[in-house]
Amino acid sequence: MRAVLRMCCPDRPGIVAELSNFIFRNRGNIVHLDQHVDTEANVFFARIEWMLKSFLIRREGMRSAVEDLVRPFEPTFLSLDFTDQKQRVAIFVTKENHCLYDLLGRCSGGELDVEVPLIVSNRDSLRHDVEKFGIPFHHVPIEPETKAAKEGHELELLAEAGVDLVVLARYMQILSPAFLQSFAKPVINIHHSFLPAFVGADPYRQAFERGVKIIGATSHYVTEDLDQGPIIEQRVVRVSHRDSVKDLVRHGRDLEKVVLARAVWHHVHHRILVYGNKTVVF
Amino acid sequence: MRAVLRMCCPDRPGIVAELSNFIFRNRGNIVHLDQHVDTEANVFFARIEWMLKSFLIRREGMRSAVEDLVRPFEPTFLSLDFTDQKQRVAIFVTKENHCLYDLLGRCSGGELDVEVPLIVSNRDSLRHDVEKFGIPFHHVPIEPETKAAKEGHELELLAEAGVDLVVLARYMQILSPAFLQSFAKPVINIHHSFLPAFVGADPYRQAFERGVKIIGATSHYVTEDLDQGPIIEQRVVRVSHRDSVKDLVRHGRDLEKVVLARAVWHHVHHRILVYGNKTVVF
Amino acid sequence: MRAVLRMCCPDRPGIVAELSNFIFRNRGNIVHLDQHVDTEANVFFARIEWMLKSFLIRREGMRSAVEDLVRPFEPTFLSLDFTDQKQRVAIFVTKENHCLYDLLGRCSGGELDVEVPLIVSNRDSLRHDVEKFGIPFHHVPIEPETKAAKEGHELELLAEAGVDLVVLARYMQILSPAFLQSFAKPVINIHHSFLPAFVGADPYRQAFERGVKIIGATSHYVTEDLDQGPIIEQRVVRVSHRDSVKDLVRHGRDLEKVVLARAVWHHVHHRILVYGNKTVVF
Amino acid sequence: MRAVLRMCCPDRPGIVAELSNFIFRNRGNIVHLDQHVDTEANVFFARIEWMLKSFLIRREGMRSAVEDLVRPFEPTFLSLDFTDQKQRVAIFVTKENHCLYDLLGRCSGGELDVEVPLIVSNRDSLRHDVEKFGIPFHHVPIEPETKAAKEGHELELLAEAGVDLVVLARYMQILSPAFLQSFAKPVINIHHSFLPAFVGADPYRQAFERGVKIIGATSHYVTEDLDQGPIIEQRVVRVSHRDSVKDLVRHGRDLEKVVLARAVWHHVHHRILVYGNKTVVF
Repeated sequence: MRAVLRMCCPDRPGIVAELSNFIFRNRGNIVHLDQHVDTEANVFFARIEWMLKSFLIRREGMRSAVEDLVRPFEPTFLSLDFTDQKQRVAIFVTKENHCLYDLLGRCSGGELDVEVPLIVSNRDSLRHDVEKFGIPFHHVPIEPETKAAKEGHELELLAEAGVDLVVLARYMQILSPAFLQSFAKPVINIHHSFLPAFVGADPYRQAFERGVKIIGATSHYVTEDLDQGPIIEQRVVRVSHRDSVKDLVRHGRDLEKVVLARAVWHHVHHRILVYGNKTVVF
Repeated sequence: MRAVLRMCCPDRPGIVAELSNFIFRNRGNIVHLDQHVDTEANVFFARIEWMLKSFLIRREGMRSAVEDLVRPFEPTFLSLDFTDQKQRVAIFVTKENHCLYDLLGRCSGGELDVEVPLIVSNRDSLRHDVEKFGIPFHHVPIEPETKAAKEGHELELLAEAGVDLVVLARYMQILSPAFLQSFAKPVINIHHSFLPAFVGADPYRQAFERGVKIIGATSHYVTEDLDQGPIIEQRVVRVSHRDSVKDLVRHGRDLEKVVLARAVWHHVHHRILVYGNKTVVF
Repeated sequence: MRAVLRMCCPDRPGIVAELSNFIFRNRGNIVHLDQHVDTEANVFFARIEWMLKSFLIRREGMRSAVEDLVRPFEPTFLSLDFTDQKQRVAIFVTKENHCLYDLLGRCSGGELDVEVPLIVSNRDSLRHDVEKFGIPFHHVPIEPETKAAKEGHELELLAEAGVDLVVLARYMQILSPAFLQSFAKPVINIHHSFLPAFVGADPYRQAFERGVKIIGATSHYVTEDLDQGPIIEQRVVRVSHRDSVKDLVRHGRDLEKVVLARAVWHHVHHRILVYGNKTVVF
Repeated sequence: MRAVLRMCCPDRPGIVAELSNFIFRNRGNIVHLDQHVDTEANVFFARIEWMLKSFLIRREGMRSAVEDLVRPFEPTFLSLDFTDQKQRVAIFVTKENHCLYDLLGRCSGGELDVEVPLIVSNRDSLRHDVEKFGIPFHHVPIEPETKAAKEGHELELLAEAGVDLVVLARYMQILSPAFLQSFAKPVINIHHSFLPAFVGADPYRQAFERGVKIIGATSHYVTEDLDQGPIIEQRVVRVSHRDSVKDLVRHGRDLEKVVLARAVWHHVHHRILVYGNKTVVF
């Protein structure tokens, strides 16, 4: 079992020395240490993963020990996680099943070691696909006039299931600011373009009409600004004049699956640090 | 020696049969035939390259023979070129020399079989770089109040040198609509972003600030709308949070060189068909 | 509904004219025409797809009409297919489920329009995964001494199900020459390396030990020579010293899924022409 | 001005703490710290770059101070470099000029901050290309019977010029083991294939004949085993059946230039650690 510390603070000499000394003198063994300094913004970022086998501080005391240690550095972000805590992930879908299948396949194959206690959809068409995996499927149709109430219902479902993360796997509804504020936990979306190009609806058609030679997909944390949240992962593929919009959609699905899955993988392995509107992905 | 026919017209049955029959019955041998139908727009595109060795129609009569042949198809674009016509290319630069060097290296190595009769710059700093290749260098500084006159001078230089194509190899001036209309021949630009993302100035900084995980470069034909012309080629490279703006610039230069060179290569080999604001690159 | 003609013959003038005339005078409309000449080997390749709506020749007479037409060109390969013939695909697996899930997901999402009448495995562990898709699962364990008999059983299963194509989706057994000869239909394999690098067992470990900076996956038609058949599709991804063998396996799975799926897609759309030990993928 | 420490030793707890403490208590400020553990081989790797502005140890005493510090860790590799030491690079070429031009362009543009005191070729054809850059060109033709003597002459040229690194920029001669042992400094080569595929002569033809869908280029340190040295960088590009050997050569040149330039860039920035037959490129 391992501990993972992520931290972000103003840069100054001695931070790595302090952190690594703390782990060493408590008999931890560092497995990964990544640090990065944004020299323009003078911000220090670190992610340290160490083995807890012979560690002298017990788990219940660790958080306060770490907080005491780093207080002088005035961290703007601090997180301590343990690799044996399995995360609970809700998946939101609409009618396309490729990202959903891909994620569930990764769970079943052991690559993604998370719990998926529920799947939510604004349509009913993927119920059968979901139920054959033995996962509860909740159909929550949303109309403009019912949105607030329906989102309230979704929040209850998430709370009951103890969800840590929501993944929008081609969910064709915009989550309201109120929803995001109430949920107050991360939401990861897949957008089917190479952001910031082609924000909004029907990006493959936009790409076709602009005549780009490469299309992409982007996973990002959801914020209140549509398609403007911190980017986690992007992938692209070459296309040509021979590709119709339908072909772009087909090629794009392959990108979407991988890009979303990698974002979720990095998130649940505590490898992402958000600062400003950007991410450090260690 | 070969002939290259490019054509674009409303789609209907029998076009390929008509074109290939014409070449066959005149004893040409087709080396490449590429056709494409945009089924949404119902437009037919073709590029046919055939050997002229035993061709029954002599070069001086070929253009009118082809025009007669395709008239019934009402082509919206028609071009007939011969592979032994060496094209004359003017390169415009400012202060960065990487695209310039790359193009001149390709000419000297035989990959780009064109004449470069002159190089124009709004600064004087690359004069030495250029003159060691034995190419005339024209320093044409441009200020807002002198722009019209200076562009007039550039147009004279291009006309005297019999230039067929202008390549903007990181030329940091915007060509005026008047210049483009007077020149009335193609102008290819390299933009240092993955268009349509990051139009305009300082795209690497824009990319850094948006936190994208991939950067790109785009070559396109220049139109009166800045960075909006038909895209010819795009390439991308992965970057990470470790890359500063300076690193993005460095990685981007490698993209710019290849993307611009490939656009020029495709253009001088008569492989590009422009329609609307898009390209077919055969 | 459309017809697809694929043909390969010694190159000579007039082939395209003959083929396109044939279609035109019988009132077909060409949707796609791709031709290619291997000028080194002097071989002509073509794939033509045309609409049958107003075509004058009825389906039952078409094959002999086409054969008569192309006989003078002495084709070394000739195939005529119709886009409404749904193909029957058997999938062979061992214990890894990622390619299997991916293929079944594509079938269920409509991207791959094929029938999967059975799945064969030399292990029993994926039975549950398969049966939840409602597809018959056949466990055919294979030991050296039983191989001939067991392969005979597999051939019976394939024959009963009227299978047109076998896909080895990480099937960890080598099909015997006798099996391939008896089956006499195409078999597509996914090899988890960038062939011809790292033939044989455990290619990710081989890649790790050689210290390559990029890994790949390759789909190919199976021949009697292990991992030597005609390559259909390849994809790669960058890796670094930070990636353990386990990480390479994880990244590689994403390649394997896409590379295999695209090979199957191209095959079932009659877009592949095999010649010598290579493929033309139109 | 900065110091760069690279080190490799058996892994054990406390190494990072010791190194970072040393820098901190001597008032250095770490700009980059990258560490990596090969958990299979139990080897620790680190590269630390820190600012020397207020550093308490003067440059002449630093090497021994660092050696004393790390002795208990029994390093198998240790290197301390300073970023103001400009390296001296000899380039060996034969007849192709693309990698040469590319490297010299990068030097002239400021991207590669090295001295190039001489260029050596076994042919005379690039003399003019080189001399226009004002760099001494040495024509050292090599025949089997004269190889030992001619290599002796090359070694003298390298010694006189104080060369730190030899770059083989498409040099079509094999350096003898005796040469490598006498030179006793790094030699970087560009091989025009995706190693380990297509070792030896004419890799583009090998790639064409195998029918691969992707080609590559590989830069590596030269060892006595042909094309078997530690790989530094690799890049690939998609090709298709439409590409002749000549097209592969053309596409490949673009890879070769970038791959070689990046290897040299990483080397002269002290970012590479060789262990066994692999590299860590920080």
